[in-house]
Amino acid sequence: MPDLRRYLPILDWGRRYDRTAFSNDLVAAVIVTIMLIPQSLAYALLAGLPAQAGIYASIAPILLYAIFGTSRALAVGPVAVVSLLTASAVGQVADQGTAGYAVAALTLAFLSGSFLLLLGVFRLGFLANFLSHPVIAGFITASGILIATSQLKHILGIRAGGHTLPEMLGALLAHVGETNAITLVIGVAATGFLFWVRRNLKPRLLKMGLAPLPADILTKAGPVASVVVTTLAVWAFGLVDHGVRVVGEVPQGLPPLTLPSFAPELLGALLVPAILISIIGFVESISVAQTLAARKRQRVDPDQELIGLGAANLGAAFTGGYPVTGGFARSVVNFDAGAETPAAGAFTAVGLLLASLFLTPLVYYLPTATLAATIIVAVLSLVDLSILRRTWAYSRADFAAVAATILLTLLAGVETGVASGVAISVLLHLYKTSRPHVAEVGLVPGTQHFRNVRRHKVETDPTLLTLRVDESLYFVNARFLEDLVQERVTEGCAIRNVVLMFSAVNEVDFSALESLEAVNHRLRDMGVGFHLSEVKGPVMDRLRTSHFLADLNGEVFLSQYDAWRALTGQATRRAAAE
Amino acid sequence: MPDLRRYLPILDWGRRYDRTAFSNDLVAAVIVTIMLIPQSLAYALLAGLPAQAGIYASIAPILLYAIFGTSRALAVGPVAVVSLLTASAVGQVADQGTAGYAVAALTLAFLSGSFLLLLGVFRLGFLANFLSHPVIAGFITASGILIATSQLKHILGIRAGGHTLPEMLGALLAHVGETNAITLVIGVAATGFLFWVRRNLKPRLLKMGLAPLPADILTKAGPVASVVVTTLAVWAFGLVDHGVRVVGEVPQGLPPLTLPSFAPELLGALLVPAILISIIGFVESISVAQTLAARKRQRVDPDQELIGLGAANLGAAFTGGYPVTGGFARSVVNFDAGAETPAAGAFTAVGLLLASLFLTPLVYYLPTATLAATIIVAVLSLVDLSILRRTWAYSRADFAAVAATILLTLLAGVETGVASGVAISVLLHLYKTSRPHVAEVGLVPGTQHFRNVRRHKVETDPTLLTLRVDESLYFVNARFLEDLVQERVTEGCAIRNVVLMFSAVNEVDFSALESLEAVNHRLRDMGVGFHLSEVKGPVMDRLRTSHFLADLNGEVFLSQYDAWRALTGQATRRAAAE
Repeated sequence: MPDLRRYLPILDWGRRYDRTAFSNDLVAAVIVTIMLIPQSLAYALLAGLPAQAGIYASIAPILLYAIFGTSRALAVGPVAVVSLLTASAVGQVADQGTAGYAVAALTLAFLSGSFLLLLGVFRLGFLANFLSHPVIAGFITASGILIATSQLKHILGIRAGGHTLPEMLGALLAHVGETNAITLVIGVAATGFLFWVRRNLKPRLLKMGLAPLPADILTKAGPVASVVVTTLAVWAFGLVDHGVRVVGEVPQGLPPLTLPSFAPELLGALLVPAILISIIGFVESISVAQTLAARKRQRVDPDQELIGLGAANLGAAFTGGYPVTGGFARSVVNFDAGAETPAAGAFTAVGLLLASLFLTPLVYYLPTATLAATIIVAVLSLVDLSILRRTWAYSRADFAAVAATILLTLLAGVETGVASGVAISVLLHLYKTSRPHVAEVGLVPGTQHFRNVRRHKVETDPTLLTLRVDESLYFVNARFLEDLVQERVTEGCAIRNVVLMFSAVNEVDFSALESLEAVNHRLRDMGVGFHLSEVKGPVMDRLRTSHFLADLNGEVFLSQYDAWRALTGQATRRAAAE
Repeated sequence: MPDLRRYLPILDWGRRYDRTAFSNDLVAAVIVTIMLIPQSLAYALLAGLPAQAGIYASIAPILLYAIFGTSRALAVGPVAVVSLLTASAVGQVADQGTAGYAVAALTLAFLSGSFLLLLGVFRLGFLANFLSHPVIAGFITASGILIATSQLKHILGIRAGGHTLPEMLGALLAHVGETNAITLVIGVAATGFLFWVRRNLKPRLLKMGLAPLPADILTKAGPVASVVVTTLAVWAFGLVDHGVRVVGEVPQGLPPLTLPSFAPELLGALLVPAILISIIGFVESISVAQTLAARKRQRVDPDQELIGLGAANLGAAFTGGYPVTGGFARSVVNFDAGAETPAAGAFTAVGLLLASLFLTPLVYYLPTATLAATIIVAVLSLVDLSILRRTWAYSRADFAAVAATILLTLLAGVETGVASGVAISVLLHLYKTSRPHVAEVGLVPGTQHFRNVRRHKVETDPTLLTLRVDESLYFVNARFLEDLVQERVTEGCAIRNVVLMFSAVNEVDFSALESLEAVNHRLRDMGVGFHLSEVKGPVMDRLRTSHFLADLNGEVFLSQYDAWRALTGQATRRAAAE
């Protein structure tokens, strides 16, 4: 049943599962679980949700992805950018801390899951391609800056809001006087420690003679260490009484069964953000999955990935979570730790389930400043302003798309930023193809080849104008060609025949067809013949369905050389007759 | 001063103006003036403005276009579709019949004029190309239906509103009981008469032995005759007392000097409609101008046309008019009547000025039903549903764009209709290029040519995969190529080298560059070489500005045949060594 296996990849890898794969997957799961516990709590806070939502969002989604996903190493769960988008979207329909807020987050996950499933079932994954690489890079960088800035309030121990950079900075400045000194010490110490761990711990441990695997586990445990130390400090010194904010009560137990809201008003308000989150999440996830798969010469199926991520989000919607996707950091850790199959994900889910059952009382005194430090260190690695320099060097159009995406995301918010980025890339592309390269060509003497008259010494004939069009013809450039032919013909009074050489034309749409018809009529009114040469098969098939070929005031030549022979010969005969 | 002549085409044709041109222009002006008087009144009513606004909108704009425009035959003034768009836009910010409504119409003309001037000065006329031919055709057809439906209330003599087809039909049905029988008789008779004139009068006159020119003038005078007869009837039988609505008081005199409003709120509300009106008006105007210019082997300069139309609209804004453009019907009449230069337009303006000075009292008893009949007969010639059949036969994508534009214009209004049409054409184009044709090619035996392995008998080598990409590479198809290469390479285990043949690649944007880099890294991880062949000069120049060529796990070959010789040779050597 190859078809069933396509939709349920677990049937494929599950039957070959053995003891080696099991032990490799188990080791990877332990490492990933250690890394995920503080990260999940932190991202839930970033999304404006209670800490446990981050844990819940990592259990059912991972299990569902293990069944439906095609990547062997992808680790699904809450990620920074999607958490930020969730906060921005849900913040517009409900107040943080209310029951409505949590329900809206579930609804967002439900919509996102449904949308991803739909895309997957109808094999519409290509829609994600409308996000160009520069737009994604600009968006991720700007999101990293926004997220890091949004966490400064936790480091300072103040209350401040805002969804754009100016709003956030304004709110921080307005409240900076209320800074809680102890919180600030905890926050700065945790941030410094985590940066140090990330940069220096592993090389130092390796130098001390530790084997790579335990060195890696210790490095990954850095966030856990900062959590344990700061939690103990808050508890031991009673710092809550000194105004240090902590995570507080986190319910102990299995993820709850929850229902998203189906109120049409809420669904309407969250639809566009859900689509945005789905596409951005999918793009992030598929890039990671493909990169990791390639290292083992494996494949991921983008449409099946949509189904896997859709199932994961639906799982989140019904078990107290919020929108999830395949995370870059956690997937790389999973892969490096030796995960062989999606079973590693399932074991991670079990680890987090145990944490949710037994460890939640321990995080009561965990300061939010520590979680903020975890987020800041994680997201600053996303910030890569070098994309500005790299696109500037390569292409101004791509630079414009990056710069606009970064600026608008910072200044006008995440949704405006990414939407503008997409619009700008599309417009720039259309602009580039709106004035295609068109070369006047002549015959290279002694051959049957035709080349650009400006670059090569070629034979031409004053009665014959031959233009090679280096682009498919469609509505955006149809009128350009119309104008160009008219301009050239009105300039060259001796011209008796015009040939368009179609060797690089892959498509002629209806607008271009009408432009060609207009060119044909106008040239006929001027007494000039109009011909085509080297028309590709599919283009010719299409032209045959119209009246164009019947009305053509000239011929379609198989090769440009045929056109040259026929039309310059004709010209000679005409001249002789006159 | 060639530069000044570019911006003031009048300097060019003015110095060669002679007596023949003068008399030809004068005859054309008389015919056009006769045609324009009832039409201008009617279109003003369609726009929701007092009747004189239509006359005013035909005087200063025509004179200004004569100075700045490049077309010899274009007749500028109020046209049906722009009048409908004006009614829709202004109706959203002011109530019909108020002073605010007229000021809003002036402001709309001012914004539209400024926008057209800006586009012209910055040579941005290509933006109009985003409206594909099917979208324009669909929009014009749907507008014709909307306009004709909107006039039925005048034929019935009832009050009914609405901006979409269902709204209009609903309002008509609700009020049909209030129909004024005399108005209905006038309306139906005028409509029938005008259809008969349009279809049958000219051939009949010619058959009766009349010369073509007087036959044409008589035919063009049909609307004037219906105006005269129905006005006399209303006056003679005192039909106003029986509920027949008439044009009423129209001020006698020169066009007034008026000021548009500069209230930021109003400017903001009208900006998007103004842009829409400008672009649609420009597209209609330039198509007519180019078609007529071609018949005399003349040229129109699209960017200078923007300046001409911009000046015309600014003129309308300061002389009591509303947005104008080059009309199809009047321009063809002008051309056919023998207009040689824009002076014909100037003479028409003088004719309308005289009408405005002396004839306005005569239209007091002119029934609005007659004007409605004039509009209905004029716009039904715009309705051309055959575009649906023609696009269906040629291309499903173009058909989808037409059908969506027609449906949405009728059901959701003109602005939504045209905006959706543009969005759909762009998306369909992106979709088509998102999955470009990629052919696996092999060597045609005994030649240096490479052809599609599926269509030709060619030599291939199991260690070498050569793909010819038939499309420029950019963000929309970058990931497609990435997936495709990965799929092919994971399928064919013997593959040692991949060559991408770039003969049809006109551009590689930054997203595609990053995809190529990803392909390069993945293939290296798999131990497979990655090469390019037949890269065009500009694409190569661009690639050289990046690290891609330095990192390339292979070579760039000038020709595919070079690649074949080098890589299949290499494969043989490797096999021998193993």
